Amino acid sequence: MSKEAAQSPKSGKTIDQTADRTAIVAARLKKLYKNSVYPVEKKYRYDYFFESPLLSDVEFDAKPQVLLVGQYSVGKTSFIRYLLGRDFPGQRIGPEPTTDRFTVLLNGPEERTIPGNALSVHPDLPFRGLERFGVSFLSRLEGSQLPSSVLKSITLIDTPGILSGEKQRTNRGYDFTKVVSWFAEKADLIILLFDAHKLDISDELKGAIDVLKGHEDKIRCILNKADQIDRQQLMRVYGALLWSLGKTMTSPEVARVYVGSFWQQPLQHMDNADLFEMEEKDLMKDLAVLPRQSAVRKINELVKRIRKVKTLAYIIGYLKSQMPALMGKEKKQKKLIADLPTVFRTIMKKYDLAPGDFPEIASFSNKLHETKFAEFNTLSEKQIADLDRVLNEDIPKLMEELPSEKDSPDIIRSK
Amino acid sequence: MSKEAAQSPKSGKTIDQTADRTAIVAARLKKLYKNSVYPVEKKYRYDYFFESPLLSDVEFDAKPQVLLVGQYSVGKTSFIRYLLGRDFPGQRIGPEPTTDRFTVLLNGPEERTIPGNALSVHPDLPFRGLERFGVSFLSRLEGSQLPSSVLKSITLIDTPGILSGEKQRTNRGYDFTKVVSWFAEKADLIILLFDAHKLDISDELKGAIDVLKGHEDKIRCILNKADQIDRQQLMRVYGALLWSLGKTMTSPEVARVYVGSFWQQPLQHMDNADLFEMEEKDLMKDLAVLPRQSAVRKINELVKRIRKVKTLAYIIGYLKSQMPALMGKEKKQKKLIADLPTVFRTIMKKYDLAPGDFPEIASFSNKLHETKFAEFNTLSEKQIADLDRVLNEDIPKLMEELPSEKDSPDIIRSK
Ligand SMILES: Nc1ncnc2c1ncn2[C@@H]1O[C@H](COP(=O)(O)OP(=O)(O)OP(=O)(O)O)[C@@H](O)[C@H]1O
Ligand SMILES: Nc1ncnc2c1ncn2[C@@H]1O[C@H](COP(=O)(O)OP(=O)(O)OP(=O)(O)O)[C@@H](O)[C@H]1O
Ligand SMILES: [Mg+2]
Ligand SMILES: [Mg+2]
Repeated sequence: MSKEAAQSPKSGKTIDQTADRTAIVAARLKKLYKNSVYPVEKKYRYDYFFESPLLSDVEFDAKPQVLLVGQYSVGKTSFIRYLLGRDFPGQRIGPEPTTDRFTVLLNGPEERTIPGNALSVHPDLPFRGLERFGVSFLSRLEGSQLPSSVLKSITLIDTPGILSGEKQRTNRGYDFTKVVSWFAEKADLIILLFDAHKLDISDELKGAIDVLKGHEDKIRCILNKADQIDRQQLMRVYGALLWSLGKTMTSPEVARVYVGSFWQQPLQHMDNADLFEMEEKDLMKDLAVLPRQSAVRKINELVKRIRKVKTLAYIIGYLKSQMPALMGKEKKQKKLIADLPTVFRTIMKKYDLAPGDFPEIASFSNKLHETKFAEFNTLSEKQIADLDRVLNEDIPKLMEELPSEKDSPDIIRSK
Repeated sequence: MSKEAAQSPKSGKTIDQTADRTAIVAARLKKLYKNSVYPVEKKYRYDYFFESPLLSDVEFDAKPQVLLVGQYSVGKTSFIRYLLGRDFPGQRIGPEPTTDRFTVLLNGPEERTIPGNALSVHPDLPFRGLERFGVSFLSRLEGSQLPSSVLKSITLIDTPGILSGEKQRTNRGYDFTKVVSWFAEKADLIILLFDAHKLDISDELKGAIDVLKGHEDKIRCILNKADQIDRQQLMRVYGALLWSLGKTMTSPEVARVYVGSFWQQPLQHMDNADLFEMEEKDLMKDLAVLPRQSAVRKINELVKRIRKVKTLAYIIGYLKSQMPALMGKEKKQKKLIADLPTVFRTIMKKYDLAPGDFPEIASFSNKLHETKFAEFNTLSEKQIADLDRVLNEDIPKLMEELPSEKDSPDIIRSK
């Protein structure tokens, strides 16, 4: 497999430069949120009415996550080592089931491991919530920090190999399936690895796919160690894998399976060398676009959120404005809640809002019952104007600053 | 693709020799049936009690049938031409939907086409029953006769290309799906062809698989024209095909898909030449073993049938023997039918028979009600001895005369 530099030959951009630019955009986005959106959300209680917590720093800073899943010994840890171009703290590679913990690979100035406890409470890292899986899981969770250009762009998550059904449940002190499911939910990409040399579909595949249910669109497969067998065998194995994936996965699009041998050793059989090289290029490209994709997704989500925040501000401001000055507040409030569909229509027309940005009527009116309209904040035209400026000027500018699709590096691997 | 002779290099046996030996075995089997089994079946009304017609010559003489199915222009007719090593009467090959009829390729001394009417009433050919599809179908049925070593071993059936759902129903004057289904039922092997160059899974595949429902075990696939695309594209197309097959086919075993370019032209891209050659060898071997497989199947079916015939003879003979000489025949017959389970057990013990060879009790006793036991034939020890001789001596000898597995030619294609 050819060793390419972390330098993208086409654009001349290194992954470092792209990572830095993407990080700058994320930081700006965070600032926009904090200055112009967050205050409005607080003022009109967005978190209460839309049942969506206010955003914290980590949601802007977190890197796209790539989760590696597969039966033991398929080469998950070796693949990570290959991507990084070097060993990492706590790394264990070997023929037996070796990786015995969930390992989060993070960029950082010095090499060290971070215990699971610390990782799961770290305010700057998106792993809060893992405490729910108990202490015996936390002792099987580890951060591995090292200086790495790759990890400046993405966070890799290594996992212990999936065991056959029986052992899965009995040999671990925590609910493996639920933990993988938690990571899959947060992941931007899930790489499911298979060993071409000893593909054992029955147990392995079904277990893995079950665990990843609902996240099929994020799954990419690797048929690893494909250089260990001849070309006709490879066709058989590859076919058997896709046949089974077709039977198991519910999505209509064909799963993408990258065929190759993803470690630092030279190929054993050379007869597929050029195929493997093309496959690797495709996979590297899929990884390299993740930071940009993730930034775009964050921006889109914020845009959607701001439109909802704006709508909420109009609704709350309107309800407040309808309150009588002295008497009959309660009665008026009841009437307004009963008339909520009419209220929504009035506001929608008056401010030219989209129906999709309004909260769901039934649950919203339930929530209104628990409040006192008289205590609501009045509409602040200035804040609305602020939100509009973010939507119409700041964010489009930010999009322009994002490294373009073709500026994304072709490869995310370190030599 | 390498051009190999019809001569099997390993065994030195030509397909002609093997075909001849297999034909001799079939003829002997037919003689055994006619002399020793058929008279007993008639005597004890096997056809009535087991609801299975007496066997005719054609059931022994018919060659294994290979049915070719696939969307138009995938290369079905070209594949047949390639197997035969020559053009055949009525052959039409071209880019538009060309083959407009079901064509049965048969061995015969002179080249000629046989009209559908004649084919469907021919007593020596296994195509009686096709009249049911009407005259407009029969005008779309044709025999193509030519002298060919390949056709001495197998009968090939070319079909018009499967069209997309709509056209399928409206453009033909007969029920295409039911006709293909009829042929699939009779076929020993169904070859489903796909065009690697323009694989259109959605319509094509589902239509074809629907038509072949219930015969999944006979299906082999060909991914044809695979030399028109590069290796990575081929992996994608092959993967997409297996993914879809996995979703569509109900069988648990992976469908066998032969990848290659099955016509007389040289390969366009050479980079998969060795893979294609191996694939073709496998396919040719799968075809070459058909005559032996079919003969073995016929023998096994006859063995099963003889065991049932023997059991029936014992049952009928026993019931007859229980009839009183003069009076109370009807009453005794009623009692015997009511006691059928005991009767079966008695006979099973007395003659050491297998439970699986007995008829199903409920439907058998219904049938007995329609008969008069007094008119039954008595048991003929000589005929039973005859059946035993066939089972224990003649058929084992016949099995030995069958060309052995490894004597089967490696290839069934003509140069
Ligand atoms: N591309 C490859 N080709 C051949 N052998 C490989 C390849 N990648 C890894 N291996 C070997 O396979 C074995 C398992 O590798 P590794 O420990 O990376 O797998 P793993 O999936 O992380 O296993 P576990 O689930 O036990 O952690 C090791 O001996 C490794 O050297
Ligand atoms: N292996 C091959 N590689 C490239 N082209 C091929 C191959 N086999 C056949 N063709 C071309 O494809 C076209 C269709 O071939 P052919 O008529 O044999 O297909 P068919 O499946 O019988 O079509 P129809 O269903 O219309 O009868 C022809 O132009 C033929 O020359
Ligand atoms: Mg590992
Ligand atoms: Mg044709």
